[in-house]
Amino acid sequence: MIRVTRPMSIGAIVAGSLALGAAQALAQDPLADMTKDPNQWVMTGRTYDLQRFSPLTQITTANVKNLHAAWSFSTGTLRGHEGNPLVVGNVMYVHTSFPNKVYALDLSKPGAPQIWQYTPDQDPATIPVACCDVVNRGLAYHPSGKLYIELLQGDLLALDAKTGKKVFQVKHAGDADFKTGSTMTNAPIVIKNIVITGISGGEFGVRGHVTAFDAMDGHELWRGYSTGPDKDVGITANTLVSPYPSAQGKDLGVTTWQGDEWQHGGGTTWGWYSYDPKLNLFYYGSGNPGTWNPDQRPGDNKWSMSIWARNPETGEVKWVYQMTPHDAWDYDGVNEMVLTDQMIGGKEVHTLSHFDRNGFGYTLDRTNGKVLVANPYGATNWAKSVDLTTGRPVEDASKRTTAKGNTEGICPAAIGFKDQQPSAYSPQTKLFYVPTNNICMDYEGVEVKYSAGQPYVGAIVRMFPGPGGNRGRFIAWDPREGKVVWEIKENLASYGGALATAGGVVFYGTMEGWLKAVDAKTGTLLWKFKTPSGIIGNPMTYVGPDGRQYVAVLSGIGGWAGIGVAAGIGADDPTAGLGALGAFGDAGSFTTQGGVLTVFALDKAM
Amino acid sequence: MIRVTRPMSIGAIVAGSLALGAAQALAQDPLADMTKDPNQWVMTGRTYDLQRFSPLTQITTANVKNLHAAWSFSTGTLRGHEGNPLVVGNVMYVHTSFPNKVYALDLSKPGAPQIWQYTPDQDPATIPVACCDVVNRGLAYHPSGKLYIELLQGDLLALDAKTGKKVFQVKHAGDADFKTGSTMTNAPIVIKNIVITGISGGEFGVRGHVTAFDAMDGHELWRGYSTGPDKDVGITANTLVSPYPSAQGKDLGVTTWQGDEWQHGGGTTWGWYSYDPKLNLFYYGSGNPGTWNPDQRPGDNKWSMSIWARNPETGEVKWVYQMTPHDAWDYDGVNEMVLTDQMIGGKEVHTLSHFDRNGFGYTLDRTNGKVLVANPYGATNWAKSVDLTTGRPVEDASKRTTAKGNTEGICPAAIGFKDQQPSAYSPQTKLFYVPTNNICMDYEGVEVKYSAGQPYVGAIVRMFPGPGGNRGRFIAWDPREGKVVWEIKENLASYGGALATAGGVVFYGTMEGWLKAVDAKTGTLLWKFKTPSGIIGNPMTYVGPDGRQYVAVLSGIGGWAGIGVAAGIGADDPTAGLGALGAFGDAGSFTTQGGVLTVFALDKAM
Repeated sequence: MIRVTRPMSIGAIVAGSLALGAAQALAQDPLADMTKDPNQWVMTGRTYDLQRFSPLTQITTANVKNLHAAWSFSTGTLRGHEGNPLVVGNVMYVHTSFPNKVYALDLSKPGAPQIWQYTPDQDPATIPVACCDVVNRGLAYHPSGKLYIELLQGDLLALDAKTGKKVFQVKHAGDADFKTGSTMTNAPIVIKNIVITGISGGEFGVRGHVTAFDAMDGHELWRGYSTGPDKDVGITANTLVSPYPSAQGKDLGVTTWQGDEWQHGGGTTWGWYSYDPKLNLFYYGSGNPGTWNPDQRPGDNKWSMSIWARNPETGEVKWVYQMTPHDAWDYDGVNEMVLTDQMIGGKEVHTLSHFDRNGFGYTLDRTNGKVLVANPYGATNWAKSVDLTTGRPVEDASKRTTAKGNTEGICPAAIGFKDQQPSAYSPQTKLFYVPTNNICMDYEGVEVKYSAGQPYVGAIVRMFPGPGGNRGRFIAWDPREGKVVWEIKENLASYGGALATAGGVVFYGTMEGWLKAVDAKTGTLLWKFKTPSGIIGNPMTYVGPDGRQYVAVLSGIGGWAGIGVAAGIGADDPTAGLGALGAFGDAGSFTTQGGVLTVFALDKAM
Repeated sequence: MIRVTRPMSIGAIVAGSLALGAAQALAQDPLADMTKDPNQWVMTGRTYDLQRFSPLTQITTANVKNLHAAWSFSTGTLRGHEGNPLVVGNVMYVHTSFPNKVYALDLSKPGAPQIWQYTPDQDPATIPVACCDVVNRGLAYHPSGKLYIELLQGDLLALDAKTGKKVFQVKHAGDADFKTGSTMTNAPIVIKNIVITGISGGEFGVRGHVTAFDAMDGHELWRGYSTGPDKDVGITANTLVSPYPSAQGKDLGVTTWQGDEWQHGGGTTWGWYSYDPKLNLFYYGSGNPGTWNPDQRPGDNKWSMSIWARNPETGEVKWVYQMTPHDAWDYDGVNEMVLTDQMIGGKEVHTLSHFDRNGFGYTLDRTNGKVLVANPYGATNWAKSVDLTTGRPVEDASKRTTAKGNTEGICPAAIGFKDQQPSAYSPQTKLFYVPTNNICMDYEGVEVKYSAGQPYVGAIVRMFPGPGGNRGRFIAWDPREGKVVWEIKENLASYGGALATAGGVVFYGTMEGWLKAVDAKTGTLLWKFKTPSGIIGNPMTYVGPDGRQYVAVLSGIGGWAGIGVAAGIGADDPTAGLGALGAFGDAGSFTTQGGVLTVFALDKAM
């Protein structure tokens, strides 16, 4: 592991780290060891691969009908609750929406009383800077007994997991200042002694990046930008040459932009991060190019809308693949990268699966970024397919937007056929379980001038339900064939995450507040419970000190899809909430605000 | 029923109503008829007698262990949730803390989706005027299909129960203006076509009163003050002469005060109201005299701290009994008056039972206000007993407070051995079930000058746990003998209401968030569930359209006892929150804010 006393350029770090060699990459990783215990849930996706799969088997397709609420806990904040708690030993750690409170709950006592709570001191002026509700996607844990949370106002906060006392709070130095439009909302990832964070603010012309901090004292280790010259991006001599011609060349993060537009070029990094310890690479996506108006930024706008593989110690880019060149739809590429191994073309491949906002479900070779499968997982119409030789979408020109007029009937909408809601994967069924939106849109670019800290949207979007009128689907997806195996129609977007379990049960939430359990093989509904508020969080499962398997989920409507309820916006203007109100116009009636954790278990008698 | 087009003096109304005679008093009352259906819960205490007893028997002492959460609902507001929902037909009506939202939920559909919601438009400047959190104690229903709620800022709001549209919103005319310190927090009572409301603001020098409005159009019918000349108070020639000498005389609401102190003399009226249809009298209590500093108001300070019986159509006082003359402890007399019939002294008496903040449990003859039993229900030490010949407490002079110094170790504290949390009564066991506080205090009067709209407290109070260190008890009480039959110690105040059922099960909540079920005969704990937040609301029960018995309770910490959590006050100053922080100093750790209704049912399989 490399530690530097002040931020260094990625080039300098790489030079220093080469001497350490591959042995370093496979060094002991106590956190990875902890994930081998199925009773705990020590990182956001349970394991580094983000499969959100639990090996626990107490709750089965046969007995899940006997699942009951065991206890519940109010988070004390009302806005949208994305993410999920962690369970380390006998303690559950719960995060909240702004002001990003953190609670430690004692699972060894009835009703899980608080051990401690911590409320960060944040500037409320941050609130209107968050484009799509003041959500937070959760905590990261370090085996030294530290918890990390990214604060909306742009700080990385470390707490002592035992006492709840602050260990450090560091500014996301430089441009991560909410006054310039930067916020932080995603769950950090801990890899060995490094904490890697993302940035939000794609609607404010923020220049996206990932930044690594020392887990012990919070000093910045490196930063890798999404746009700009290769040295800023972390593209080095060790970066693999892309198999796709349009991705070959020097400083594409500058040359695929007009003028200095790359400096406020978006490519923010607020999704879920995965990590492959053997390859020593972490994976994430970058978001939309700055301003949604495509006419203001001719070119591919690299490396917005891309899948990234980086070395966590140096920040060096191993490979990068742009899914949506010259975006004209706000198809942020931030959705999670789930790591599995699949038999494809007769051989086992270390794959990465990704359900993009652009409507395509991708399976890549995660060693080199080569696209193996890319098929629509919904009624996508802006592109017919992805050309596997060029890596580029085969567009329908009539659906490419412009500031010259309103482009109608585009599917998916800006919110994508999937947004933040993370999918799950079951190695038993070899299927992905994907909560999706079924939302389409009209989109019209609008000339906008960049002004630091001011919205830099540049488009008027009206979203509406997609084909069939149902606004969401929960699907099972074969990543080898790139096809939907079964689907459940949902009236509202399926905007919370999925959980797959070895009991053959898959869990997901709905915006109305139902937590549902379905058969992983068939999608048959086995059980449901109405939680207090709409669910946009991720169910998780653990075994308590009493030896029983529990399932926990945060309810608390909000996020982009739920912004109408969360921010109290009326449905009169369908373009309000960046278009969300058009799709979820009855926001006031389907649920109510409120952050509550509900924890379920089978009856003791069962 | 008397209708007048504008407010009339009570004397004028009485003159008009005498011609109507007793037949009028026994006129048809569709709402009283609705209370005969045990499946519904159409008024705050289920029946006019405020017994909070349900004849339902599906849930029993034998099967209550199989009770499970059936569904839950977030109210969308965080502050303290007192009171309980109503169930009329297949619809549940839920109220919230400020801004006093109202929801109609469809019990005939899974998860009880919203039919409508209504958010009153209130001035947030009201918030700091509420002495002890921005609670609301609930709704009243009228068989014409109207719902009534008292808004914190001082309006009576009527909604169409079917559509949620506003029928009328009337100012609580005159002095009920939050800018003068008046707020409204209690549940109104509907009696025939009259809606009777109370007033809060005893800490702002408000002159307490009850006011009656026409249920159809909201015009004011009459007003009865707690202080002032007999004509304002509603004491007429028909008012019974008190059996107690100190309560005999003209204009005692003026003459028992110094100067014009009666004009801001407190006696507010924010408790639960009961009604006896046969006697055509409604019952309620009045609160503390204005300024807590007794040295500024020599005299009995009538009619603060009193139990009232009034005619609902005229406002005329039938009788009034002052429990705590010249209060020096803030022993508000507002707690509920529960109407039962009891065999006392060998004959059946129409009784009224009342557990006063002053620590005495009273049983009165409700036809004439005569005290039959008055015994301490906790470790009361400010008075040894109540003299049944004078009706006055036999004080311990060392516990009478003054501005000349700090008086220490007074039991109960200002918050009383019971506050707003309403008791229940079971006609099966003939016992009362009383949630209590076990809190004592030090109290020091402080000179204070009246200024409209400014706090007029005039005392520094430090509360602390009472004998034994447990801050609450849940007790069973024999109203005939005036004695505790059994008790359950609670770590925190038992600050939510009680529910008694014909299944032999009694329910109550705790400030930690537990809903508990105990055996009505023995107090044995049979079942408990941890709701999301501390419970200060009242459990209720009903039968749903599916024929199953449900139990519902609002959780949502707050109120005076929970003000530390609700208003985010630190525990550094034990006199903060009018002394509550001294008693509940660990406010930050025992629960979290959040308004959630949780609804329970037995497993279908049971």
